[in-house]
Amino acid sequence: MTGEIIIAPSILSADFAKLGEDVRAIDEAGCDWIHVDVMDGHFVPNITIGPDVVKALRPHSPKPFDVHLMIAPCDPYIEAFAKAGSDIITVHAESGPHLDRSLQLIKSFGKKAGVTLTPSTHESALEYVLDKVDLILVMTVNPGFGGQAFLTSQLEKIRNIRAMIGDRPIDLEVDGGVNADTVADVVKAGANALVAGSGVFKGGDYKGNIEGLRTRAEAARKEAA
Amino acid sequence: MTGEIIIAPSILSADFAKLGEDVRAIDEAGCDWIHVDVMDGHFVPNITIGPDVVKALRPHSPKPFDVHLMIAPCDPYIEAFAKAGSDIITVHAESGPHLDRSLQLIKSFGKKAGVTLTPSTHESALEYVLDKVDLILVMTVNPGFGGQAFLTSQLEKIRNIRAMIGDRPIDLEVDGGVNADTVADVVKAGANALVAGSGVFKGGDYKGNIEGLRTRAEAARKEAA
Amino acid sequence: MTGEIIIAPSILSADFAKLGEDVRAIDEAGCDWIHVDVMDGHFVPNITIGPDVVKALRPHSPKPFDVHLMIAPCDPYIEAFAKAGSDIITVHAESGPHLDRSLQLIKSFGKKAGVTLTPSTHESALEYVLDKVDLILVMTVNPGFGGQAFLTSQLEKIRNIRAMIGDRPIDLEVDGGVNADTVADVVKAGANALVAGSGVFKGGDYKGNIEGLRTRAEAARKEAA
Amino acid sequence: MTGEIIIAPSILSADFAKLGEDVRAIDEAGCDWIHVDVMDGHFVPNITIGPDVVKALRPHSPKPFDVHLMIAPCDPYIEAFAKAGSDIITVHAESGPHLDRSLQLIKSFGKKAGVTLTPSTHESALEYVLDKVDLILVMTVNPGFGGQAFLTSQLEKIRNIRAMIGDRPIDLEVDGGVNADTVADVVKAGANALVAGSGVFKGGDYKGNIEGLRTRAEAARKEAA
Amino acid sequence: MTGEIIIAPSILSADFAKLGEDVRAIDEAGCDWIHVDVMDGHFVPNITIGPDVVKALRPHSPKPFDVHLMIAPCDPYIEAFAKAGSDIITVHAESGPHLDRSLQLIKSFGKKAGVTLTPSTHESALEYVLDKVDLILVMTVNPGFGGQAFLTSQLEKIRNIRAMIGDRPIDLEVDGGVNADTVADVVKAGANALVAGSGVFKGGDYKGNIEGLRTRAEAARKEAA
Amino acid sequence: MTGEIIIAPSILSADFAKLGEDVRAIDEAGCDWIHVDVMDGHFVPNITIGPDVVKALRPHSPKPFDVHLMIAPCDPYIEAFAKAGSDIITVHAESGPHLDRSLQLIKSFGKKAGVTLTPSTHESALEYVLDKVDLILVMTVNPGFGGQAFLTSQLEKIRNIRAMIGDRPIDLEVDGGVNADTVADVVKAGANALVAGSGVFKGGDYKGNIEGLRTRAEAARKEAA
Repeated sequence: MTGEIIIAPSILSADFAKLGEDVRAIDEAGCDWIHVDVMDGHFVPNITIGPDVVKALRPHSPKPFDVHLMIAPCDPYIEAFAKAGSDIITVHAESGPHLDRSLQLIKSFGKKAGVTLTPSTHESALEYVLDKVDLILVMTVNPGFGGQAFLTSQLEKIRNIRAMIGDRPIDLEVDGGVNADTVADVVKAGANALVAGSGVFKGGDYKGNIEGLRTRAEAARKEAA
Repeated sequence: MTGEIIIAPSILSADFAKLGEDVRAIDEAGCDWIHVDVMDGHFVPNITIGPDVVKALRPHSPKPFDVHLMIAPCDPYIEAFAKAGSDIITVHAESGPHLDRSLQLIKSFGKKAGVTLTPSTHESALEYVLDKVDLILVMTVNPGFGGQAFLTSQLEKIRNIRAMIGDRPIDLEVDGGVNADTVADVVKAGANALVAGSGVFKGGDYKGNIEGLRTRAEAARKEAA
Repeated sequence: MTGEIIIAPSILSADFAKLGEDVRAIDEAGCDWIHVDVMDGHFVPNITIGPDVVKALRPHSPKPFDVHLMIAPCDPYIEAFAKAGSDIITVHAESGPHLDRSLQLIKSFGKKAGVTLTPSTHESALEYVLDKVDLILVMTVNPGFGGQAFLTSQLEKIRNIRAMIGDRPIDLEVDGGVNADTVADVVKAGANALVAGSGVFKGGDYKGNIEGLRTRAEAARKEAA
Repeated sequence: MTGEIIIAPSILSADFAKLGEDVRAIDEAGCDWIHVDVMDGHFVPNITIGPDVVKALRPHSPKPFDVHLMIAPCDPYIEAFAKAGSDIITVHAESGPHLDRSLQLIKSFGKKAGVTLTPSTHESALEYVLDKVDLILVMTVNPGFGGQAFLTSQLEKIRNIRAMIGDRPIDLEVDGGVNADTVADVVKAGANALVAGSGVFKGGDYKGNIEGLRTRAEAARKEAA
Repeated sequence: MTGEIIIAPSILSADFAKLGEDVRAIDEAGCDWIHVDVMDGHFVPNITIGPDVVKALRPHSPKPFDVHLMIAPCDPYIEAFAKAGSDIITVHAESGPHLDRSLQLIKSFGKKAGVTLTPSTHESALEYVLDKVDLILVMTVNPGFGGQAFLTSQLEKIRNIRAMIGDRPIDLEVDGGVNADTVADVVKAGANALVAGSGVFKGGDYKGNIEGLRTRAEAARKEAA
Repeated sequence: MTGEIIIAPSILSADFAKLGEDVRAIDEAGCDWIHVDVMDGHFVPNITIGPDVVKALRPHSPKPFDVHLMIAPCDPYIEAFAKAGSDIITVHAESGPHLDRSLQLIKSFGKKAGVTLTPSTHESALEYVLDKVDLILVMTVNPGFGGQAFLTSQLEKIRNIRAMIGDRPIDLEVDGGVNADTVADVVKAGANALVAGSGVFKGGDYKGNIEGLRTRAEAARKEAA
């Protein structure tokens, strides 16, 4: 298994009235990445935030901005998100027929490229882009809303993708219902990057929540090794 | 001419990292409404913010939230924006064939209903919904981005709509390039509600900018009376 | 004013389990046309019935089948509805940019061609197709569902269209909330063909309901003359 | 092999002028389910019937209504079909990227959830929703029209899906060209629920046709066991 | 009435196997502009040629390339057609809600900007862009195919647009069924630029055909003056 | 391994001003097929040529016209391309959910049917249509533009598809970056039909280029046998 444990709080669970402050807070609390959920009201039935919000947040933390585009088509917005300061841009395999092209486009801006799958999509969708992805994101809830229950059906998918990755330097990220109860399972299945919304923001103890997740994740990782 | 002068700063020009603080600031600086520009990346080529951002800002000011939906279709999101705390919800006449239905839907949530037109759309699109609108918004730039130059072609449209409104209690709002140089013209043409982005936020003197716009607008209004 | 009073019960209010029987019943009760509402779940948020249902009903009455297509695009289905036995095929001006082409297509199958407008659409949409329409339908509710209240905003539109029609042999039809309370107003405004759903089917006395509508309509017509 | 043989006549082959009577007739003739084909003119090039037709037919038989939605998107109509009295609601894997979400939505109304595939779609599309489906439907013709020839290419798919199902309580249904000539093959391949249109309605001997299919199916089943 | 008579043969009627030669031939035969019909199979039900064909033809004539985009959306292709060597780029008012933006985009590349209307569209769609168009094209057939009959309904539209234009330096072009029989009517109605397909290419006497059209047009023009 | 080596120059690299002449030239230079790339500006971000261009080129060579439709939907245009003189019509597996239907439609016009995959699509998309395809096209660049670099990720896909084909009489074609440097690899992987753009047209020595490709391809083929 490759890749360090990465804790990536989703700002979808932050306070949209003071995102800069919340980004600084999770940075100081020890997160590894800042996870940004972009929704366009078409690919998913919710609208969240766009490139100008990413740009406004950029000065508030030097940590990698891990931007998940739940939009279709995605190509027309990749440049804007790249220039707004994203470090990783992740697109959905289902957002159109030209996934390889989208990944090339992301890389043309010097950014890391990710691919993600909705819960029902088979990992065969990844097979011919493994040579150009830096991150694979497995959605363990249906994208569009916070607060959904973790889909255990995805554990097998995580295991299968981990096997596909082999020695490639690809992070395997999980998003949806990741918390103290589920983190060990996803790490044992092979994930190393963990998006957490309420799992980090609940109760306000960002530092304690991040450390709690990290401790459990690293323990699960050792156990699985 | 009916309707008081209303200054509605657009938070598109605020700092997205501290929107709550900026909303409080423009409230304290004397604005009348808070103008919110919602873009979905489909009706217009930009994505801005969605209902959860409106909800997060709601506690920061008691002033009317004037929400302009640059999205299509609009009906699936009207409930979310209504429940997020919008006071006025404005939809585009071009966002679909069922404008009357959208306006009824907005009103069913107890909100004020607005209609807006892109620069090329003729005001005949408004004729059969005049009985159910509280606000008509004339776009004096093409929706999608800040920083565009005011379209003088729209002054005639403003005059024509003012004539159509007659005695109806409908606010006539203008958005796009409204600043110290253009405000007198739009007010003389018949507008009473003025959206301003950089016209309010530039230089940081929100209070001075709002007062400057208001003074010019009221002078133009008297002159036109 | 041209055109006889026509009563066209909408089978949307019939019993879908015995449409043939209901079509025979309204025929025997003295209706003039059989009105069929086709919805595709895309142009309007409801799915009703398609061409095979029209075909199955065709043997049950020799009266004109007046088929209102609430679908977009409409051109791909015009042949099927023509061959299923429609006599009049009415399309929405809003269903695409090629209204003249759709009307030519309907006529190429030897059928009468109608155009309809949603409540917010201005009658200027009709100006350049007046030479090829046999029927203009004014929607006095938003298409998609039965049971909505009559939109009085449409009375002016009916008057304006009647004036546009002049001496042309075009029927002016109204659909939505037409009943004993509203029929006189729509006829005085200039309509001569009246679609009625619950106005015909309520209480089961189809004959009485049709005669009631007709009596009121003809009285209003005389009064207006 | 699990699951009893189920005969599900498709009302697409019934007389749309007297659907209630035909539903009673196939019920009395001994069918197990009533199969309803819903088409929206967009996912497939035909429009058939919508939720109000299902609702009207509901009182005519207590047997399960097995509703196949050939529509996209499907989520906006699931509630209407559930409330109209459907027992099983089957959606297409190809109707959008959020299959897991659609299945959850069906289940939230207390209905059985089905998934179906067009002839070209690979069964890998089912792998991560096996835990939440009650029925898998293999289309053995291209959806949209009756009267097409059975696609023998689908026999291998049926076998593969039967193997995927294993011990799970999932019915495996087949629709398209199922008749006296083909029924043994599909049952031997692993199907247990059989949709039949002309196979049931032809010649008017519903009871004989249903019994004929059932006899052949059960014989094939024993042979395969 | 302003504007010289302009004859613009449409290469839709040329031989696609030797477009360069045909472009040189109509140039030498005395045409004023080269008219190029671009169709995308979506806005109209035909696919013709794209920007690389325009680019390949550019060296074959120095005369203005008058490019009519029957595509939607149009904005994504304006740059390619501008760079391919178009002189005038004409877009459909019906191709989207942002006509003013498309015209600004065309002008940003230093090209002349045109607007066109399908036969059913009212000229009110032009009112608020008159200040930025160089050409208005009235379609006198439904766009998509050659060989259709001239729509006399459009003569009134031509007259109305000529009146709207007033003294502005805007060419008024007509496309569809323009030939020796119809050219006088369209010129008398106010058109000055004439697209002709078979009207120029029929019989192979390009020079004679062009001169014939020009002679009739200029005579009609004098008569109307 | 089945299938002779086939060299199919793409007219995308020809001179669009004299396509007939170029088609004759590649025919005389010894090509096997004429490859035609059709793009609609929607499935791919480029518009090229449509059915009337194919029709115009048809008299210029008796060799098979191998037409690759990069359009979606494809079914509405299959008849036009068949009647224009195509011999092989290839559609994208990603162009809609009804691939089997499109292939049946192509065959109904007596044409050979091909399927193609974008670089990211898995070959499982082909499994249930192998019984009705004559050609499988592997895109080794993202469709839409010439001049891209060959994607080595596709070599494994070519090998996998060659294994799926087995003894079936299906040509395995490759398009994208095929030239003297890459041709041996694709042939060794299992391809037998080779589309080449600049690989044939560069330098103007069509005959030499075609022979060069063929020599390398046949050598690689022997080596692999």
